[in-house]
Amino acid sequence: MKNWIFGILLFSFGFVHAQIEKNEVVQKIYDEALAKGQCYEDLRYLCKKIGHRLSGSPSAQKAVHWGHERLKIMGADTVWLQEVMVPHWVRGTEVCKILYPNQKSFDLKISTLGGSVATPANGIKASVIEVKNFEELKALGDKVKGKIVFFNRPMDPKKIDTFSAYGGCVDQRSSGASEASRMGAVAVVVRSMTLRTDNHPHTGGTWYANDVTPIPAAAISTLHANKLSSELFKNPNLQIELKLTCRTESDVLSHNVIAEIKGSEKPEEIILVGGHLDSWDIGEGAHDDGAGCVQAMEVLRLFKVLNLRPKRTIRVVLFMNEENGMKGALKYEEEASAKKEKHVACIESDRGGFTPRGFKVEGGFRNEEILRQHEKTLSHFDLHKITEGGGGVDISPFRKHNILLIGYEPDSQRYFDFHHAETDVFENVNQRELELGAAAITSLVWLLSEYGAQYQLK
Amino acid sequence: MKNWIFGILLFSFGFVHAQIEKNEVVQKIYDEALAKGQCYEDLRYLCKKIGHRLSGSPSAQKAVHWGHERLKIMGADTVWLQEVMVPHWVRGTEVCKILYPNQKSFDLKISTLGGSVATPANGIKASVIEVKNFEELKALGDKVKGKIVFFNRPMDPKKIDTFSAYGGCVDQRSSGASEASRMGAVAVVVRSMTLRTDNHPHTGGTWYANDVTPIPAAAISTLHANKLSSELFKNPNLQIELKLTCRTESDVLSHNVIAEIKGSEKPEEIILVGGHLDSWDIGEGAHDDGAGCVQAMEVLRLFKVLNLRPKRTIRVVLFMNEENGMKGALKYEEEASAKKEKHVACIESDRGGFTPRGFKVEGGFRNEEILRQHEKTLSHFDLHKITEGGGGVDISPFRKHNILLIGYEPDSQRYFDFHHAETDVFENVNQRELELGAAAITSLVWLLSEYGAQYQLK
Repeated sequence: MKNWIFGILLFSFGFVHAQIEKNEVVQKIYDEALAKGQCYEDLRYLCKKIGHRLSGSPSAQKAVHWGHERLKIMGADTVWLQEVMVPHWVRGTEVCKILYPNQKSFDLKISTLGGSVATPANGIKASVIEVKNFEELKALGDKVKGKIVFFNRPMDPKKIDTFSAYGGCVDQRSSGASEASRMGAVAVVVRSMTLRTDNHPHTGGTWYANDVTPIPAAAISTLHANKLSSELFKNPNLQIELKLTCRTESDVLSHNVIAEIKGSEKPEEIILVGGHLDSWDIGEGAHDDGAGCVQAMEVLRLFKVLNLRPKRTIRVVLFMNEENGMKGALKYEEEASAKKEKHVACIESDRGGFTPRGFKVEGGFRNEEILRQHEKTLSHFDLHKITEGGGGVDISPFRKHNILLIGYEPDSQRYFDFHHAETDVFENVNQRELELGAAAITSLVWLLSEYGAQYQLK
Repeated sequence: MKNWIFGILLFSFGFVHAQIEKNEVVQKIYDEALAKGQCYEDLRYLCKKIGHRLSGSPSAQKAVHWGHERLKIMGADTVWLQEVMVPHWVRGTEVCKILYPNQKSFDLKISTLGGSVATPANGIKASVIEVKNFEELKALGDKVKGKIVFFNRPMDPKKIDTFSAYGGCVDQRSSGASEASRMGAVAVVVRSMTLRTDNHPHTGGTWYANDVTPIPAAAISTLHANKLSSELFKNPNLQIELKLTCRTESDVLSHNVIAEIKGSEKPEEIILVGGHLDSWDIGEGAHDDGAGCVQAMEVLRLFKVLNLRPKRTIRVVLFMNEENGMKGALKYEEEASAKKEKHVACIESDRGGFTPRGFKVEGGFRNEEILRQHEKTLSHFDLHKITEGGGGVDISPFRKHNILLIGYEPDSQRYFDFHHAETDVFENVNQRELELGAAAITSLVWLLSEYGAQYQLK
């Protein structure tokens, strides 16, 4: 046989052999995650025994200690807490009513937006002006003065990716209060960020620009947003009453939870995988982001129980304070930089515990290529989507390091049914979907730890 | 410019242009299905106003008339009912108890299997023998005589595709009674076909071989299967009591519902799209297969409302009696053959109303190729999976015609949570997932009607 034919055969054999080996390890990961996975029971504990856990709350600290203990039990080489000061906002009570001159008022289902200021103790009574966006608001000029602005632009159902629909609307929640305050409004009510029509308001952060007077802000359920809109159509002079007793207290000491398995060949190269431990203060933070936390923890457990010794260091990070300050993420990157740690990849799971579709990759073609070399393996396990997109909030401080930032991408259809609402509870997480996600993330972490996370010129 | 370069450019331009055109039409289909879809409200009606609809029941006939009317309103060129005689099995009451010598009996949650014979009026009391499969059963020999056989092999959670796990277990339900009867058993109890551990038994068809004495058969919830198994471990002589009053009545006249839009260029080439209208007699038949029916109906509505004039004929078929006899499917193919109708493709939706993943294609490489020519369009809309696999029960009689048989493939993770159980209700169907499925199927029907459904030699 000619030498070059032999060479090609050997090369092909090696290639096919490597593919089979990859698939075999990934198959082991899937088998364990699906048949003996622990992330679902971890999530049950986090949701049912600890519950929601807004930064600064006693339950957030309980979650920190729980994560710390669990990761130790799972057999991490080291587990530690990283101190970080976080904001402490407290919801208080919340009431919103449509006032009718000659009949009983109608209670609107609302949820104060996180970070909002309170109303005066006896509330605010004012007429309401409905707008769809900031342009409409600005065009109204003086008419906004003294009014409560009602932002009522729905998420666009035509977007297949619901995160695009969310991205096209969330300015109303995050900056609506600032924009309305600039125009002289006294408060804002914002249509909930969901594609469903139901009576569960969805909270979320609101932020005041430095140059505005903070005004109270609340989300209203989509059902009652529709109701308010139709009532306003009948009577544009309609008044509502808003009474919020939320407050911001002093910052509180809290922690990121960090656990590590040291790499056997390149321990200095760190592959981070994480979610955020804090949640909003309604529901149980099951999908957002209990799911991401227990999946990241399951990565570590699967490596240990399957005796997969990673070539590179695997670091699990449960970030504190993603929802209203990002203090944990900022602190983590700051210390990593100060210590000159070499992170080569960061993977975040913060899009819910739904059926896996693939991964979003930041940083263009070269970074996508790193994942594409594993395309055959990934698609064999139903992970078909490798697309350019945002990695996630908690790993975003690493953008400046120009490394591989990856967002785990589950199916997005049901996420905003539950996101930041009282329905984001354990019962709305499907065990298999959650476990498949843990398997998908673990598989990617293993592939990167084995084959490297840096683009190689061919 | 050289002629051949010009030729290549023209060809490429034509290719890109065709791709853009395809995507534009499919985008219109998705926009309408997601923003103004009607299949979710159709499903609500079918589930809540008509409810479950086992073949031969009055509600099955209500569903026939409803489907007929809806398809007329949607603007089909023609709508008609095709007569078919169907079996009529009636559940009656069902009781199963663990008997303890000195304490109160324990009620086990069961559901009689469809087609089962009744127990004697005063029930059957017998000891129980647990097996995992037919080999174990046969090896027991005479020990089976006079016993109730308890089939307790669970679905394999390691299979990513839950239909594979189902396929690996369902012999216990479909033939367990026959196999046990051959060995002298007096009844069978079968572990429910689901990956969940809960207290909802899952019914389904059981069939008696011609050469056996029919014995009563019931499904038991997975929770109570575990309970029964652990009780048997403690006391192998444990007795249970089974009392079923089901009966089979005379066959009943029923109907397939058929609607059509005539093709403009090749009206003789028929593209069939369908689901089955009948369901089991617990729950509401929401995923199985209300979802498939309303999606097939939505195909027709979308063609009409978007004024998509198909080149080939589109035929929507709501089949009767998929669950316990297949009489509708057999009748449909028989008449089609007798009339020498030329079906070129059959598409079935009978895997639930979950997020679309792609399509399964029967008949090997050439048939897959027909779909693969649309791969770019399909994956642009998140339909990544084109794989070889079964099209579905109702289109299976067309196998002998050697045409394109396609099974719509939604995500499979949650299907067996609900399949044939009292939890298969409207509330467990997600609106967007259902609508995306309707859009996916309509898009494929349009692509086939526009570009053909027969393999072209290149």
